[in-house]
Amino acid sequence: MPILEILDYAGVAVFAATGALSASRKQLDIIGHLFLASVTGIGGGTMRDVVLGATPVFWVTNPTYLLVCATVAVILFFTAHLFDSRYRVLVWLDAIGLAAYCVMGAAKGFAATGSAGVALVTGMLTATFGGILRDLLAGEPSVLLRPEVYVTAALIGAGAFVLATMAGLPLAAASTLGVLSAFVVRGGALKYGWTLPTGKALPGRDPDDVM
Amino acid sequence: MPILEILDYAGVAVFAATGALSASRKQLDIIGHLFLASVTGIGGGTMRDVVLGATPVFWVTNPTYLLVCATVAVILFFTAHLFDSRYRVLVWLDAIGLAAYCVMGAAKGFAATGSAGVALVTGMLTATFGGILRDLLAGEPSVLLRPEVYVTAALIGAGAFVLATMAGLPLAAASTLGVLSAFVVRGGALKYGWTLPTGKALPGRDPDDVM
Amino acid sequence: MPILEILDYAGVAVFAATGALSASRKQLDIIGHLFLASVTGIGGGTMRDVVLGATPVFWVTNPTYLLVCATVAVILFFTAHLFDSRYRVLVWLDAIGLAAYCVMGAAKGFAATGSAGVALVTGMLTATFGGILRDLLAGEPSVLLRPEVYVTAALIGAGAFVLATMAGLPLAAASTLGVLSAFVVRGGALKYGWTLPTGKALPGRDPDDVM
Repeated sequence: MPILEILDYAGVAVFAATGALSASRKQLDIIGHLFLASVTGIGGGTMRDVVLGATPVFWVTNPTYLLVCATVAVILFFTAHLFDSRYRVLVWLDAIGLAAYCVMGAAKGFAATGSAGVALVTGMLTATFGGILRDLLAGEPSVLLRPEVYVTAALIGAGAFVLATMAGLPLAAASTLGVLSAFVVRGGALKYGWTLPTGKALPGRDPDDVM
Repeated sequence: MPILEILDYAGVAVFAATGALSASRKQLDIIGHLFLASVTGIGGGTMRDVVLGATPVFWVTNPTYLLVCATVAVILFFTAHLFDSRYRVLVWLDAIGLAAYCVMGAAKGFAATGSAGVALVTGMLTATFGGILRDLLAGEPSVLLRPEVYVTAALIGAGAFVLATMAGLPLAAASTLGVLSAFVVRGGALKYGWTLPTGKALPGRDPDDVM
Repeated sequence: MPILEILDYAGVAVFAATGALSASRKQLDIIGHLFLASVTGIGGGTMRDVVLGATPVFWVTNPTYLLVCATVAVILFFTAHLFDSRYRVLVWLDAIGLAAYCVMGAAKGFAATGSAGVALVTGMLTATFGGILRDLLAGEPSVLLRPEVYVTAALIGAGAFVLATMAGLPLAAASTLGVLSAFVVRGGALKYGWTLPTGKALPGRDPDDVM
């Protein structure tokens, strides 16, 4: 199986797992697990295919991806209570999914357009969109608004892949470099609380006070 | 008019009505009614057409659907205060829309791909996406997180339609079977509080306590 | 540069600015600014292109739009604290973006289909979708639920453009008329608190009390 396909299945499977864990935290039934697992697992890649015009999207062309989501959801429905902290498992799996998907998204965007800028954005969108949907639908605090670097990690992974590809590295090496870069940055942020400076900005006031 | 077209107009009209009722609950103006009615009415089918690559989407090809949404919104803007409980009307109309749209979505996905798995997912997405958008935009508690079966009903309706079609039943019979299955399940859930078991999972703790 | 292209860049730039200001209110880092600026700047136009089937979407075909978003985000990351009220700047820029984008969306929808109804809806969606995404992602109170006219202004701008085009006015005149109509209505609503009547509807009760 080629490296990009492995990354695609890995991204779908681990994002599906984070969706199922989120459903478990909300005490949803098995169908709620299937739903959130599917939306999270295929959401980012669907967004990527839609903006690139690569429709029908990947899971319509190859429904195996749906089977992956469903299998992950069923397994976690029966086992999620065994974890000491589902949220901790969720964010680490999310880090793996982010790393796999930012490279996969960048690769597909770069192949379709040859533009580094488009590849960065499709990498970032593919990696973050599933998790954003999951948090919105489950009513969790959005991972976007947490202080640790998140979108940054996706952007670094996509950037490393694009630079390595433009420098002439073979696909497998560029992909591995991209995945590792993103995972190290996101993992470091989770473990050591890495943050970027936030500028001089004050917190926002209530709209009604300033209008 | 063929059965699938009837289901499509019915799905659009009743989902548009739930959007307008939601706008009424939020005391929005007439344009707010038009907006939420349109987004809810055409949101699910738009999502379906986009992932299947059937673009321009259905309401661009045939703007009559927009006229249906607008008419429903205007009528409800002037009459919504007459209902004793708009929320009760909203969830029952939503049940009808769910039943019509899960079959319509499954039919379009099955016709486009021949895959039962894809048909289940497009049925489920078409039936639920409009309502999810409505609840997100109006800031209502998402119907997804309520305990009664909801996505389940859409999945059962789509499944019944696909099984009946694969068994060789004519389109009208398979559609009727699918619509009735979904409506009975969702209606029973509303009336008798049917739920599925939620496994052994405990509720989620606050992210800041477990990281 | 033709008028529609100017409107497109203007819409992207000012919506990107509102996204960056929203990121600043939430004290996000520079990547958070880039992310929210991009999503807000290109969100509405992406939605427009997707429903019209005009894929790959505009910023994949022409990545200059991404550069505009990134430039705006970086500038505002370093300067947002200089404004006395970022929210006030945000809503006024949002008004300019709304005015530019409702005409741009209506023009593209009208050119693709010749239907005035479709043009109204693509104008409205293009103008409002970026801001809706921004508010959802940043957890701000949605501009949709505020009492001042908002969607209404987009609809009036799109309608003025379509009527003027159907009456035979040249593109530049019709565009200017549409932009001014939308901006005057939205600006008047912001400055003088213009609202539309909300009918006789009472506020919604809690779902658990009425089911």
